[in-house]
Amino acid sequence: MTTKYEALLDKVYEIHDLNKALAVLSWDKEVNMPAAGLDARVQQMTTLSRFTHLLSTSDDYGGLIEDAAAELNGAPYDSNEASLIRYLRRSYEDARKLPPEFVARSAEVSGQARAVWAQARAENDFASYQPWLEQVIELCQEQAELYGYEDEKYDALLDKYEYGMKTADVRAIFEAVKAELVPLRQAIAERGTAVDDSVVHQSFDIDTQKKFARYITDAVGYDFNRGHLGTVVHPFATSFSRNDARITTRWYPDFLNPSLFGALHESGHAMYEQGTHPDLARTPLARGTSLGIHESQSRMFENLVGRSRAFWQAHYPRLQSLFPQQLGSYTVEDFYRAINKVQPSFIRVEADELTYNFHIILRFELEQAMLNGELAAKDLPEAWNAKMEELLGVVPPTDSQGCLQDVHWTRPGFGYFPTYALGNLYGAQFWETAVSQNPAILDELNQGQTTSLLAWLRENIHQYGRKFTPGELVQRVTGRPLDHAAFMRYVTAKFSELYAL
Amino acid sequence: MTTKYEALLDKVYEIHDLNKALAVLSWDKEVNMPAAGLDARVQQMTTLSRFTHLLSTSDDYGGLIEDAAAELNGAPYDSNEASLIRYLRRSYEDARKLPPEFVARSAEVSGQARAVWAQARAENDFASYQPWLEQVIELCQEQAELYGYEDEKYDALLDKYEYGMKTADVRAIFEAVKAELVPLRQAIAERGTAVDDSVVHQSFDIDTQKKFARYITDAVGYDFNRGHLGTVVHPFATSFSRNDARITTRWYPDFLNPSLFGALHESGHAMYEQGTHPDLARTPLARGTSLGIHESQSRMFENLVGRSRAFWQAHYPRLQSLFPQQLGSYTVEDFYRAINKVQPSFIRVEADELTYNFHIILRFELEQAMLNGELAAKDLPEAWNAKMEELLGVVPPTDSQGCLQDVHWTRPGFGYFPTYALGNLYGAQFWETAVSQNPAILDELNQGQTTSLLAWLRENIHQYGRKFTPGELVQRVTGRPLDHAAFMRYVTAKFSELYAL
Repeated sequence: MTTKYEALLDKVYEIHDLNKALAVLSWDKEVNMPAAGLDARVQQMTTLSRFTHLLSTSDDYGGLIEDAAAELNGAPYDSNEASLIRYLRRSYEDARKLPPEFVARSAEVSGQARAVWAQARAENDFASYQPWLEQVIELCQEQAELYGYEDEKYDALLDKYEYGMKTADVRAIFEAVKAELVPLRQAIAERGTAVDDSVVHQSFDIDTQKKFARYITDAVGYDFNRGHLGTVVHPFATSFSRNDARITTRWYPDFLNPSLFGALHESGHAMYEQGTHPDLARTPLARGTSLGIHESQSRMFENLVGRSRAFWQAHYPRLQSLFPQQLGSYTVEDFYRAINKVQPSFIRVEADELTYNFHIILRFELEQAMLNGELAAKDLPEAWNAKMEELLGVVPPTDSQGCLQDVHWTRPGFGYFPTYALGNLYGAQFWETAVSQNPAILDELNQGQTTSLLAWLRENIHQYGRKFTPGELVQRVTGRPLDHAAFMRYVTAKFSELYAL
Repeated sequence: MTTKYEALLDKVYEIHDLNKALAVLSWDKEVNMPAAGLDARVQQMTTLSRFTHLLSTSDDYGGLIEDAAAELNGAPYDSNEASLIRYLRRSYEDARKLPPEFVARSAEVSGQARAVWAQARAENDFASYQPWLEQVIELCQEQAELYGYEDEKYDALLDKYEYGMKTADVRAIFEAVKAELVPLRQAIAERGTAVDDSVVHQSFDIDTQKKFARYITDAVGYDFNRGHLGTVVHPFATSFSRNDARITTRWYPDFLNPSLFGALHESGHAMYEQGTHPDLARTPLARGTSLGIHESQSRMFENLVGRSRAFWQAHYPRLQSLFPQQLGSYTVEDFYRAINKVQPSFIRVEADELTYNFHIILRFELEQAMLNGELAAKDLPEAWNAKMEELLGVVPPTDSQGCLQDVHWTRPGFGYFPTYALGNLYGAQFWETAVSQNPAILDELNQGQTTSLLAWLRENIHQYGRKFTPGELVQRVTGRPLDHAAFMRYVTAKFSELYAL
C-alpha cells in the first residue's frame, strides 16, 4: 500500500462513515422514531446528505482517485485496490452527472408526489395523481439524458441499480420467462389440485411469532451477535458495518407468512453484508454488488430454502410446539402446500413465488413505454389492467389495487423494479451451481441446516462485496451469463409436483 | 430578522443537525447496537465529531457570529436572537480554547483509562489504575489553564457544566447542607424507627414492569407521541428535537425501584426538552440550560413527586392490580416507607434521596484537592474512606465499592459531579416557588396528577431552554440565588415525619 492510495482511503473512510451515519438515522426513523420527530429528522438527514454529496463530488476527491489510480497502474484486476478504484471512478462520475439543481428539484417533486399519491391511493383517485406521475416521468427522462446511454434510454436508469446490465438483455430473459411461465400458471389454474391455506390464516400470538422468527433466522445462519431484529411497517435490511447488519419485520396477529418469510428474506440480505470480507470494511465495496444480486440472497433464503419441503420437515415440529392449538391437526405437508399456494392476485407484495415475476415484468414493460413516450400517464390504468389480464389472468377492480399500489413511481426510480425478478433468476442459477459443486447442501437441507450453503455463498459471493459487477460475478460463479433456465427448471419441477400436473 | 442573522442561522442549523445525528448514533449504540458493532460505530462518531468540531470552531463561523451580533446590537436581552448570540459567543470561545492536539490526547487517554479502570474495579486493584488517574488529573489541570479562571482553578471546569457558577458559591451551599444534613442523618440512625423495604425486593415480571413504567411516565406528563422508551444498561435521556425526546431504563427481575424511579427520573429530563419553545428549534438553545437545572427536573419527578405519599395514594392501587401477589398484603404506607428508606451505603447510584448528597459533596471536595495538587492520586483511597466515615458514617470494605466505583474520573471531567446535588437543591427551590404561586399543584398531586406542575415548569423553566444561565434562571423564577434552605426544609419535614424524630 502506498501514500496516494492511503490518502484516498482516508477520504473514502470519511465519506463512508457519514453515509453509514445517514443509514443509522434512516433505520431509526423507521424503527423507533415517534411520528412527530419526522420534520427534524428530515432536516438532519438532508444536512448530512448535503455533506456527503459535497465530499463525494468534489474536484479534490476526483483528484485523489486519479492520483491513486495512476499510482496503482498495473494492480491485478481482482485486487481490492484495483476494484475499489473501478468502483470509485464510476460512482464519482455518476454523482457528478446530476446537477445539484436537478437533485433538489427531484427531491422536491418526489416529496410532494408521495403525499398526493398516498391520498390518491386511499381514495382510488388516479386522476388526482396523474399530473404528478407526468412530472415523475419527465424527471426519469431528464435523468436518463443526464446519465447518458448508448442503445436505449432505459439503460441509463437500469444501470444505476444493476450496473452493466442492458435493457435488451433483461427483455430477452423476461420474454423467455413469460413464454414458459404463463402456460405453467394457466396449467395450475386449469388442471391443478386445489390448495387449502387456512393453516397460515389463524390467530398467532405475536410474541410467539417473534420467538420463532429469531429461532428460524438463527437457524439459517443470520448472526445475531452482529445483528438486530426490529419491528417496522415496511420491512427492510440495512447494515452499518459487517458487524452490525440488521433485519426488520412486521407481525400480523392472524397471518403467519409476513413475519416468517419476511424475516427469512431480510436475513438473506443481511447475511450478504455480514459475509463481506473484513478487508473491504469502511469502503463502499463492503456491501452487496447490486440490487438484483442482493435480492438473489434474500429470495434464496425466503423461497429456495424457506419454502422447501425439506426445510420444514426439520423445523415444522418446532413451529407446531409453539402453536400447538393452531397447528396440532395440520401435517407438515399441509403447511408446505399452504405456503406455496399459487394464486394470481392484484398486489405485488402479497404475490406467491411463481406469479410474483409477472408483477415485475408488467412494471418493467410499462416503465419503458412511459420513459420512451409511448405511454402517457393518463393511459396508465388501462395499460396496467390489460397487462394484468395478459400475464396474470385477473384485472384489479380499482386503481388502488392496480397502478397506484406501489410507492416507487413517486420518485424518478424507473429501473429499480426489474431487479426484484432478476433476484429470483440469479438465485436459482446460483443455487443450481452451489448444489452441483457441493451436494452436501441438499443433505443438510433435509436436516433443516444451511451451514454448507452459507459457506458456499460466503466463499463465492458474499466475501467479494462490490468488487465485481453483477455480470462479472454471475459469470465467475456459474460459468455463464444470467439466463432464465435454472429458474424455470426450479419452478416447473416444484409446482408440477405440488399441483400434480 | 435580518440577513446576517439569517446567514448565521443557516450555519447554526447545519451544526445542530450534525450534532443531533451524533446523538442518534450514540443513542442507538446504547439501545440497539450489537456489541460487535462498536469499532465501526466509534469510527462513524469520530468522523462526525471531527466535522462538527471543524465547523463550530472555524474562523468563518466566528465571523458570522460577530457580524450577526453587530447587526443585532440593541436587541432586548430576553430576545431569542440576543440570547442565541450570547450562547454562541461563549461556546465558540470555549471550543477554540482547546487545541485539537489536546482534544485528541484527551480522548486517547480517556479511552485507555476507561479500559484499565473497568479491570481495576473488577479486580479491586487501585494500584493498577493509579498512573491513569494521575494522567486524568494532569489533563484536568491542563484543561483548567486552557479555559482560564479568575478566582480558583476548579471554576474553569465547573463553568462548563454549570455556566456562571463559582466554586466558592457551591462550597458555601454544600457546607450549609452538610451542617444540617449530617445531624439529620445521625438522628435517623440513632432514634429513627426502622423501615422494612422487603416490599420492593420481590420477583416482578419485567413485561409488567414495562407496562407500569409506561403508565406512570405518561401519568406525570411525558409525551409518548414525542418520545420513546428504550432499554439500556445505564439509563439516560436524550433528545433529537423537542418532538423526539427519549427516555431509557433498566429492568431488574427482583427489585422494583430501578425501573420505576429510573423511568420517572429520565422522564423529568425528557419533559424539559419536550417543553422548550418551538421558536428555539434547531438551535443549541433548544435544550436544558445546565446539567444542574436539568437534574432539578429529573429529581423533581423522581423524588418530590415520585417519592411522595400523595402521589402513591393515587397510583399504588394500579401497581397493586398489576402485581397482586407481590403487593396485595402491603399497604400504600408500607410502600411509601420502603421507597424512602434512609440507609447510608457505599454506592452513589444506589443511594437514597437523603444520603445521595453526601456522595456528591465527597467527590466535589476530593476533585478540588486533586486539581489543586493537595491530594495525590496515590492517597485517594485513604482520603475517600475518611470522608465516607465523616459524611456517611460507613467505610467501604474495598476500593471497588469506594473510589473506583464511578466512570467519571476516567476522563477530564472534574466539575460534573456537583451538578447532581445542585439539581436536588434547585429542584426543592423551584418546587417551593411553584407551590406558593399555584397551590392547586398540591391538590392535584393528591389525585396523582401533575398537570399544573408541568404547566408551571413549562411556563417558568422549560420554554426558555438555554436562553438564560442557571444563575439568571433561578433568580428570575424564585426571586433569589440558589441556596440550601428549601431543600433542607423539604428533607427535614419529610424524614422527621417518616422516621418519627
